[in-house]
Amino acid sequence: MSGNRIERDTMGDIEVPNEAYWGAQTERSRRFFAIGGETMPTPVIRAFAYQKKASAIANRKLGVLADNLASAIEAACDRILAGELYPHFPLVIWQTGSGTQSNMNANEVIANVANLALGSELGSKKPVHPNDHVNYGQSSNDSFPTVMHIAVVKELTGSLHPALRHLHGALLKKADEFATIVKIGRTHLQDAVPMTLGQEFGGYARQVELALSRIDSCLPHLYEVAQGGTAVGTGLNAHPKFAVTFAEELSNLTGHPFRPAVNKFEALAAHDAMIEASGVLNTIATGLMKIANDIRLLASGPRSGLGELFLPENEPGSSIMPGKVNPTQSEALTMVCAQVAGNHVAATIGGMTGHLELNVFKPMIVANVLRSIRLLADGARSFTDHCVVGIEANHEKIGELMAKSLMLVTALNTHIGYDKSAQIAKKAHKEGSTLKEAALALGFVTEEQFAAWIDPAKMARGEE
Amino acid sequence: MSGNRIERDTMGDIEVPNEAYWGAQTERSRRFFAIGGETMPTPVIRAFAYQKKASAIANRKLGVLADNLASAIEAACDRILAGELYPHFPLVIWQTGSGTQSNMNANEVIANVANLALGSELGSKKPVHPNDHVNYGQSSNDSFPTVMHIAVVKELTGSLHPALRHLHGALLKKADEFATIVKIGRTHLQDAVPMTLGQEFGGYARQVELALSRIDSCLPHLYEVAQGGTAVGTGLNAHPKFAVTFAEELSNLTGHPFRPAVNKFEALAAHDAMIEASGVLNTIATGLMKIANDIRLLASGPRSGLGELFLPENEPGSSIMPGKVNPTQSEALTMVCAQVAGNHVAATIGGMTGHLELNVFKPMIVANVLRSIRLLADGARSFTDHCVVGIEANHEKIGELMAKSLMLVTALNTHIGYDKSAQIAKKAHKEGSTLKEAALALGFVTEEQFAAWIDPAKMARGEE
Amino acid sequence: MSGNRIERDTMGDIEVPNEAYWGAQTERSRRFFAIGGETMPTPVIRAFAYQKKASAIANRKLGVLADNLASAIEAACDRILAGELYPHFPLVIWQTGSGTQSNMNANEVIANVANLALGSELGSKKPVHPNDHVNYGQSSNDSFPTVMHIAVVKELTGSLHPALRHLHGALLKKADEFATIVKIGRTHLQDAVPMTLGQEFGGYARQVELALSRIDSCLPHLYEVAQGGTAVGTGLNAHPKFAVTFAEELSNLTGHPFRPAVNKFEALAAHDAMIEASGVLNTIATGLMKIANDIRLLASGPRSGLGELFLPENEPGSSIMPGKVNPTQSEALTMVCAQVAGNHVAATIGGMTGHLELNVFKPMIVANVLRSIRLLADGARSFTDHCVVGIEANHEKIGELMAKSLMLVTALNTHIGYDKSAQIAKKAHKEGSTLKEAALALGFVTEEQFAAWIDPAKMARGEE
Amino acid sequence: MSGNRIERDTMGDIEVPNEAYWGAQTERSRRFFAIGGETMPTPVIRAFAYQKKASAIANRKLGVLADNLASAIEAACDRILAGELYPHFPLVIWQTGSGTQSNMNANEVIANVANLALGSELGSKKPVHPNDHVNYGQSSNDSFPTVMHIAVVKELTGSLHPALRHLHGALLKKADEFATIVKIGRTHLQDAVPMTLGQEFGGYARQVELALSRIDSCLPHLYEVAQGGTAVGTGLNAHPKFAVTFAEELSNLTGHPFRPAVNKFEALAAHDAMIEASGVLNTIATGLMKIANDIRLLASGPRSGLGELFLPENEPGSSIMPGKVNPTQSEALTMVCAQVAGNHVAATIGGMTGHLELNVFKPMIVANVLRSIRLLADGARSFTDHCVVGIEANHEKIGELMAKSLMLVTALNTHIGYDKSAQIAKKAHKEGSTLKEAALALGFVTEEQFAAWIDPAKMARGEE
Repeated sequence: MSGNRIERDTMGDIEVPNEAYWGAQTERSRRFFAIGGETMPTPVIRAFAYQKKASAIANRKLGVLADNLASAIEAACDRILAGELYPHFPLVIWQTGSGTQSNMNANEVIANVANLALGSELGSKKPVHPNDHVNYGQSSNDSFPTVMHIAVVKELTGSLHPALRHLHGALLKKADEFATIVKIGRTHLQDAVPMTLGQEFGGYARQVELALSRIDSCLPHLYEVAQGGTAVGTGLNAHPKFAVTFAEELSNLTGHPFRPAVNKFEALAAHDAMIEASGVLNTIATGLMKIANDIRLLASGPRSGLGELFLPENEPGSSIMPGKVNPTQSEALTMVCAQVAGNHVAATIGGMTGHLELNVFKPMIVANVLRSIRLLADGARSFTDHCVVGIEANHEKIGELMAKSLMLVTALNTHIGYDKSAQIAKKAHKEGSTLKEAALALGFVTEEQFAAWIDPAKMARGEE
Repeated sequence: MSGNRIERDTMGDIEVPNEAYWGAQTERSRRFFAIGGETMPTPVIRAFAYQKKASAIANRKLGVLADNLASAIEAACDRILAGELYPHFPLVIWQTGSGTQSNMNANEVIANVANLALGSELGSKKPVHPNDHVNYGQSSNDSFPTVMHIAVVKELTGSLHPALRHLHGALLKKADEFATIVKIGRTHLQDAVPMTLGQEFGGYARQVELALSRIDSCLPHLYEVAQGGTAVGTGLNAHPKFAVTFAEELSNLTGHPFRPAVNKFEALAAHDAMIEASGVLNTIATGLMKIANDIRLLASGPRSGLGELFLPENEPGSSIMPGKVNPTQSEALTMVCAQVAGNHVAATIGGMTGHLELNVFKPMIVANVLRSIRLLADGARSFTDHCVVGIEANHEKIGELMAKSLMLVTALNTHIGYDKSAQIAKKAHKEGSTLKEAALALGFVTEEQFAAWIDPAKMARGEE
Repeated sequence: MSGNRIERDTMGDIEVPNEAYWGAQTERSRRFFAIGGETMPTPVIRAFAYQKKASAIANRKLGVLADNLASAIEAACDRILAGELYPHFPLVIWQTGSGTQSNMNANEVIANVANLALGSELGSKKPVHPNDHVNYGQSSNDSFPTVMHIAVVKELTGSLHPALRHLHGALLKKADEFATIVKIGRTHLQDAVPMTLGQEFGGYARQVELALSRIDSCLPHLYEVAQGGTAVGTGLNAHPKFAVTFAEELSNLTGHPFRPAVNKFEALAAHDAMIEASGVLNTIATGLMKIANDIRLLASGPRSGLGELFLPENEPGSSIMPGKVNPTQSEALTMVCAQVAGNHVAATIGGMTGHLELNVFKPMIVANVLRSIRLLADGARSFTDHCVVGIEANHEKIGELMAKSLMLVTALNTHIGYDKSAQIAKKAHKEGSTLKEAALALGFVTEEQFAAWIDPAKMARGEE
Repeated sequence: MSGNRIERDTMGDIEVPNEAYWGAQTERSRRFFAIGGETMPTPVIRAFAYQKKASAIANRKLGVLADNLASAIEAACDRILAGELYPHFPLVIWQTGSGTQSNMNANEVIANVANLALGSELGSKKPVHPNDHVNYGQSSNDSFPTVMHIAVVKELTGSLHPALRHLHGALLKKADEFATIVKIGRTHLQDAVPMTLGQEFGGYARQVELALSRIDSCLPHLYEVAQGGTAVGTGLNAHPKFAVTFAEELSNLTGHPFRPAVNKFEALAAHDAMIEASGVLNTIATGLMKIANDIRLLASGPRSGLGELFLPENEPGSSIMPGKVNPTQSEALTMVCAQVAGNHVAATIGGMTGHLELNVFKPMIVANVLRSIRLLADGARSFTDHCVVGIEANHEKIGELMAKSLMLVTALNTHIGYDKSAQIAKKAHKEGSTLKEAALALGFVTEEQFAAWIDPAKMARGEE
């Protein structure tokens, strides 16, 4: 099987490794784009399998593709979906901006696999031709955008959504577990009024719940697929019913309600729906950054920090400081979040810089969105499993800090007014005394009043 | 009226200009934050008027604020809304990150205006006290986030939405006007298959239509307001029914369906809803950048460019080249779009960097979102009125370019196959001949077939 | 003086307010670009005065501008530099992307002021013509880039550099003042080995020192000015010696070593030098964000935070929590830093999106760079004066935290090995005991050894 | 060799695959950070080899590491540098933010390889101990920053610099080749005055030349290495002369003038030097984006675009449009540039978000900077080899466009004034006539004057 065979395209002959299922156009791209090494993300390859399979089914139904050819194409797509053929997709992200070369890679691999199955030879283009059959009624220009949407929908719903639900559940459970632990709240990093640790985690849970709803809200625009627009959006060379039939078949195959883009010209020339999705990921990263950062702050210490939380100790923290344990899951997740914000800018610039009938930043845009999804999903899952679920409250430290807080004075506002309350707090701060000592010394309240009015647990419930 | 009066707060005495309606805390901020010069955006000041008025009404209804004080507060708010008091809001964006100083600015101005109306003196804090009455049941920490949402909802719906509708209408009209002008499509900036100029503008119109739907989809999260959470989210010192009553009154006053945030802790500590809105603006900027850039490309020339469009000539284009006219509206709008993408990054970093119970990048975040809204709205309106509505097609040039295009060959694919079609195009390209000449020379089609199969208008309709 | 006069340009007649010194082209821009409201930054207007004055002097020397006209032009420029004429520069940033309209604004105002001084009338264009004399040998396309460089060099050196030197001095002083205060270091927000508070502030000072060197390193590219390139870089219509003579005169006027750009085509078509400068500002913002954030972390409390620093108490911190004082200067500065990072992205997109012989994002690019400079300079100065200089160490808290730290165990590594040291730390952590108790209980060291080996002050000096 | 062995660290026992050279701490990281899949970039692994080797040599020289152990460590490092051991570095970027786990990975692999070479067993930690010998006098906290600088210096100088020199040479050659081809310049995408195609490419070459100088200017800050600071910057547990000796040895090994950081606290806690380098890469991306975009614009066509350039035809451009050839190298490079701008934002956020003595975004920061270097280097090389060197001028089209340009009228400015020149251009534009026809019809010049004054080649030389 080693050695090369000759493949041919409109540019002429080219040698392709014998064991490769790809053809001439893939091979040219391999040679002309030795850039960066990152190959097209697996979800894109899988999405091509859905897209080519749905096309074959639709074209067969519409009577423009012979049954036996369609069946062979569909079977080849199934092998891609089974994960058997990934090594035959060697192209990098940094190729033509339309993704044409990856589309041809899919066409060539599927044609070759189909032809082998039909008893023909690699590179024969017979009976299944990569352009005339696998790509029938399609252009890279409508196929690649369709693939982008399929891949992103699949990963958003199948990877990020469940990962965030997992995190959400863990945070809710902690919120419940910590519901009665009264602690000092902090605003501006300064001591503020009491709340419960459960309320704090409940706020995090709500952030994640809203993140889930943001994913849901960007899906409808992603369900609109460009397929059927062919080269510039007019649908030239596709069967008039192809767009609709394709979308139905794709929906059947994937279980998602894909539908033809309302305007195919927009769907090829612009990727605003992808930038919108990227913006959602950026928002989610904003939220997770906050949560992960808070948790390491609350767990700072063990002796010289806030020290309110114990995090699971997963690994030694220092190559020089024995016994040190670090909030490493927070660190990994915050790095992920910074990356997602950067990916979003890259995608945005790509979205902004298209020209006329075709945006040619497609592989870069989809690669960034998919990378963000993967990182957020993996990061959220790792953070949940190796950090959140094992978080414990440091009751002792929490109680100690709350007891000496000066901001409990806020409860006196409605009894003695803001200005006198401030005097008490300032006096205690200056003298290092307790609030009670200062309050009594100033004569603004009696001991009984102080005991009755300053009740942190009630304050945490918002009660006076 | 010139000279100073003495005001007093918990830090002590401070001189305030006699003519100023603000008090001690505003004055301190003026002195300690001589940064950048940009004052808090007007929509924030107006939103404070709504927020304080709705609070006064709610507190009165709940029986915790006397009728006469509430009335005086409401009347002061109305004067702000009438635009009479803006000079009394001198504080810059670059102040405390909670916006506390702007909240106190509002409290102080409203108290003073109310007290003057009630026959008292500036700085008297009687009968209306800035903290104890105007700010009753509120904290900066829930008020400023509420104000952020009010301001952004107002501007999104009252400014950006109509401006984009205006642009959308103009683009649709052009799409209609240009519906039968068949032209060459361009992908990769290279000649592609035919389409109509109306289809091209229809794609732009669809981008703007989707932009409108993106605004709509981010509003629900913005309708959730933090008010009622007070200092850390527990609602300490607010009436138990304040959050609900406030939201009702705010909805009455503004005509938008504001409601209490489901989780007040999240609403103070995070501004994910603002980052989401900023992401929508970033997406809109992505779309408008594309449209404005396309239009200047299509209008490039007059003699050495694509030359398919004539843009309105609004002003001389060059201080050295006589008679030059430039696509200046595209330039202004694309600059705006780049700015919006930058504003989005600033807001995102602010959203990511909050700590514990309070995000302290609030003024920066809201200022960026409001600036993006203003720029997009003004930019879209200017672009519409001074460019889009006056665009005319250069029929002659469009026709000339299409006639000599090689990509019309695509129509032959389904008749003679991709490979032979490619041979024709390559031959014509190499020899500088027409497609027809090359096709006939190669003997792949007859003259009759060529005439029947190559019909640009049919191709633009996607018909074979 | 009220009412309008008629001005005329190549587009025809237009009414201009009688009291305005600008002319027809400025007036057109005013009408066609009602976007955003932000007028061209003052440093740009001042830079135009330098640019037009140096041009007049150079043209006079080269014999292509009459002495009396040149003198009148120079005198008008001096009036701009004296700050007398700013209201006559009403144009916004969001205009033509070449800045042509602001260049014409300068030409028109200078011509009118010169003509008035020479006894002629507003709008007469005689004896001084805005294009033929004020703009002689110039194009907007080389003038505006030159102005961009002048403005940025002036502000970097005259505003940001001294502000950072001011901050640097204050940090160094604190480093010195705190040189002997031994404290616990923190890595990963977790307790680490001892250091001095002076070392911590010394690290901040070094960051600012490096920031200063970064400004220095980007200046040389900014000293290269486009002037002399005229419309596309060829220098058409300018005297052959104009570029050199202009740069000499500009250097004389400003005191900075400006020189003609090595390649004028690059200087018009690209603004990489501006993006480089913006990158330096982004780096500086990165550093200042870190410093400001650290300081608020170290000052967190007063009772439930790290509490190692006391910050100056400048203003009341809360409208609801009496006596609260917040790290507001850190908040303003960190908001500034986030903004600068956003401005940098906007400028970068502008720099990336130019076409052919002229980048047309010039006003947006320069506005962002200037805004970043202003914000960083003002922010650094405010932070220095209202925070850094007044920072005091909380000796008691620092000492208390250090005494109970477990990471002092690191000093035992070289005596008893990493693994035994780790055992001691873990035992103490688990049992809540002191290191010494755990060490003796495990029998790894004697009391004398412990006393000799664990010496925080020595550790802070890096000594064993 | 299959199966597992038991390794042990301070957390206890853990199973490690028998064939793995890593140990317990690497294994823990593998299990706890299943995030994203991207392993630490190879240049980081190689930099660790340099760092550990230089440390061993320095420690041996300083008498704190036995000769035989040092030799074995050095030999193990050489094997890493020979590329033999990469599979033993399985950790991902998304781990602890200090890079501690990768530092321990290096320590463990080197210790195991050294021990095997010395006749001991995997996992024995004898005679070479990963912490006590390989990591002697080091902490992750100073080692990883050192490694970051080594890796980036190596890649900037060994990969990006030569790639840009290659591009620079190719552009210069084209500038020379095209030196006498007079063409129409374009500003605002509108026809402007003439220039040569060589001048246009000379501008691109100058951008790349400046890019090279920007790399040079950021190296000095990268030459400063943190090594010797150990855990927090004090140098605890390192030999007093270690920092200096290490830097000398590292310089010997790498050929770059590394030196100890002036301030070790800054070098651990902040990565401003990395953000500065990232800013330089962002600037380079800005420049390359412009060049690549211009070239595809100039090559747009073949019949309906500007059509001034022929690009090499490397691969078929369309799966549906036969014979189409696209500017794919420009597309790949512009995608790369957008990515670099995004990477820069990610790195910046990481740089901004560090806390106290240690920035914990290290792996993310270095990964982004290295990825940008790789992409720019590969992208520039591919663009040069597969596009720039093969660019040819379309003399015919260039000549045709220039002949009919209206902006040649600019040459008349100095003869008949701006206003009359504008009249000529406008008349010709309106009537579709030539300039000459319009000029003569208006009677502003004679035929002889026109011929004498309008000479595009002279205009391109800036001569009148």
